[in-house]
Amino acid sequence: MNKSLDTFFNPNSIAVFGASRSIDKPGRVVLQNLIKGNFGGDVYPVNPNAKEIGGLKVYDPKNFPKSDLGIFIIPAKFVPETIEIAADKLKAALVISGGFGESGNVSLDEELLKISKKNDLPIWGPNCLGLMNTHHNLNLTFLPTSRLPMPPKGKVSVLSQSGATVASVLDWAGTINLGISKVASYGNQLNVYDYEILDYFLKDKETDVIGFYVEGLKDGKKLIEVAKQSDKPVIVLKAGKTTSGIRAAKSHTGALAGNFEVFKGVSRQMRWGMARGPEEFLLALKARSRWQKRVSKIGVVTCGGGFGVMVSDSVEELGMTLSKLSKETTKHLMTSFPKRVSVKNPIDLTGDATPEMFGVAIDSLIKDESVDAVVVVLLMQLPKLNSEIVDILQNFSSKDKPIVVVSPPGEYASGINKLIKDLPVVSSPEKAAGVLCVIH
Amino acid sequence: MNKSLDTFFNPNSIAVFGASRSIDKPGRVVLQNLIKGNFGGDVYPVNPNAKEIGGLKVYDPKNFPKSDLGIFIIPAKFVPETIEIAADKLKAALVISGGFGESGNVSLDEELLKISKKNDLPIWGPNCLGLMNTHHNLNLTFLPTSRLPMPPKGKVSVLSQSGATVASVLDWAGTINLGISKVASYGNQLNVYDYEILDYFLKDKETDVIGFYVEGLKDGKKLIEVAKQSDKPVIVLKAGKTTSGIRAAKSHTGALAGNFEVFKGVSRQMRWGMARGPEEFLLALKARSRWQKRVSKIGVVTCGGGFGVMVSDSVEELGMTLSKLSKETTKHLMTSFPKRVSVKNPIDLTGDATPEMFGVAIDSLIKDESVDAVVVVLLMQLPKLNSEIVDILQNFSSKDKPIVVVSPPGEYASGINKLIKDLPVVSSPEKAAGVLCVIH
Repeated sequence: MNKSLDTFFNPNSIAVFGASRSIDKPGRVVLQNLIKGNFGGDVYPVNPNAKEIGGLKVYDPKNFPKSDLGIFIIPAKFVPETIEIAADKLKAALVISGGFGESGNVSLDEELLKISKKNDLPIWGPNCLGLMNTHHNLNLTFLPTSRLPMPPKGKVSVLSQSGATVASVLDWAGTINLGISKVASYGNQLNVYDYEILDYFLKDKETDVIGFYVEGLKDGKKLIEVAKQSDKPVIVLKAGKTTSGIRAAKSHTGALAGNFEVFKGVSRQMRWGMARGPEEFLLALKARSRWQKRVSKIGVVTCGGGFGVMVSDSVEELGMTLSKLSKETTKHLMTSFPKRVSVKNPIDLTGDATPEMFGVAIDSLIKDESVDAVVVVLLMQLPKLNSEIVDILQNFSSKDKPIVVVSPPGEYASGINKLIKDLPVVSSPEKAAGVLCVIH
Repeated sequence: MNKSLDTFFNPNSIAVFGASRSIDKPGRVVLQNLIKGNFGGDVYPVNPNAKEIGGLKVYDPKNFPKSDLGIFIIPAKFVPETIEIAADKLKAALVISGGFGESGNVSLDEELLKISKKNDLPIWGPNCLGLMNTHHNLNLTFLPTSRLPMPPKGKVSVLSQSGATVASVLDWAGTINLGISKVASYGNQLNVYDYEILDYFLKDKETDVIGFYVEGLKDGKKLIEVAKQSDKPVIVLKAGKTTSGIRAAKSHTGALAGNFEVFKGVSRQMRWGMARGPEEFLLALKARSRWQKRVSKIGVVTCGGGFGVMVSDSVEELGMTLSKLSKETTKHLMTSFPKRVSVKNPIDLTGDATPEMFGVAIDSLIKDESVDAVVVVLLMQLPKLNSEIVDILQNFSSKDKPIVVVSPPGEYASGINKLIKDLPVVSSPEKAAGVLCVIH
């Protein structure tokens, strides 16, 4: 079977089965997402009971124009026969509808598999959120953009065993300005598998970094084979790590989450980053999409000693170390700053810190060879800090060492934090070490 | 010495030494904070070189009206002689200025101590942010309210070894609607000590829960003695847990952070909650100020399976368990919900979840005796969820079981999250278990 995933991610024409006149039906939302998203190819709504929807001519399932991709958002029981009818006009099918094997209707899955083989038609899903390709203006999901806007264009691609999880992660990505390339919610993996999507992302020129939410793998060995062919960075969010989690995963995706220690071993071998939760996952993807180097020795600059202590604790707790700054750096800092500034690592600029002082300290840390990555603690409650810090920080984002900003929310602070678009910003000091540990 | 801390937290008259004509000098900010904060007592600006500041008559240090409290925001070297001159008109002194022992000027501290003893005058600080009492409209800090607004009035009191840390924590508290009673930044502890402030808070009728940021203790044994007299809940944010952290603490507050294992042992004995970072600290304070019961068995309701799995993992990883729901609960859920809903714990309402369904599920979990606390996962990307969820959740906040909401940020979600004022809301599933573990 020709399972070129390019047909899914870069189709030139799409037939939408289940396009509906009711504005909030999922089939109609998919149609709207294509139109509103300025998809450049042809879109054919398919519905036997309508002539026109949203200004577009509607086709009958028995008589619609040849299309690269058919997307199916119709009740599960009608999916097999509809695909059967449409198969000879399609190169690939994406089934969003649920109600298949995951609901106990295993025979429907078997029927679909037969149709797929008979017609040499790859079938993605069923039971999934769908997919996106920002570089192709392609939003093939059934959530309205009022709830799940297209994320900003970028080079991070995400595959996910869970539709709701990836929806939430993508919405969040928008709020932290994380640029996304492709998104794949793969559902029941009828015959498009996790490792095939991973393979596609690993080879994709529009993908620099891969995020992977996984409960259980389709075929661990195949996945390792695929992964070994590339050193493109992968960051994993693994759920189903404990007895309780594994049980919950079984009833969620039906996944056999398997032994987490084995999974950890494989990840270590592949040098995949392991995030402990969605927040760390997203911020580590953001860091990794900008900086490729692995980090271990951390330089810290703070304007509040307590936050410096807490960052130091977390760095050590997570198996990294605080850099021992070079004599040159120390000397430079001593001549640059008043006596009250503690020039050891963490550098404590104290409560009189100015944006300029932060600039000098960060620059010194970046230039010091003992430093792999920098944590900057901003406490915007301090009166000499102001919005000038934003440009200073943003300018360092193009340097070759990762910077994570710790800036707790607050009445004035939250506004400033939103402006620091190009760096990962966390609210709490222990999270900075968490993000760096994923790109460790 | 009569060290009644009430003079610090409930003064009827305050003399402000260092009140300045320049609007951004710390001494002027303190004055403004008192006036703007509608402090009900008398306020006397003291400055030998001014006649009138901000419409108030200014006094000479040698000739000002008797006051309960003198607050000193003048250069360190002038503090001893000024307090000496003023001592007979004051019941207590609060020294905000830095530049004492913490900067190596140990002799200044010694001088202050002598003056304190000679005049029977307790001296708070030096080198601190100051203090607050929201119930007395008392904001004795030197940060402008544009940077650090008074937090909402409530029953949580916080003492902190670090001024910048507590400033940031208070600003954050406002954003999560955490009601604060008193705040104490105690600086160098010349002769007002951490355990005395703790004692005051433990006995204070306006304080239900205590938050404590600490690097090292003044006198561990005294603190334990004090703590043993009360079972008022205390939540600790301990910094200086590792070799790196202890070193950083030494150069920050000069604290000998000591052995963290010993501190943990004491905290366990006292049943103090231990937060792993400021975010957990604040959310646990919020949870504890509403619910007194300790929690161990957790019920989860989600609308996305993946987030349910991740909550389950974290609950187990942190030493708690997922409740095994009663037969009655399970039966009730089965009759209430369509077949696709998984009625085991975690209850998965799936992508068609409505606010009403959440209401039914949460109500069942609260009524089930096997459940100590509830985690609610909202993924606001799902189209059937809407702002009706806010009132439903808020109504449960008056029930006797803790509820933590997991709702990741997003274009629509972030607006909803801000409206859920009475419950702790976290962005990432692993954090819900983190907060519950602190009130474990």
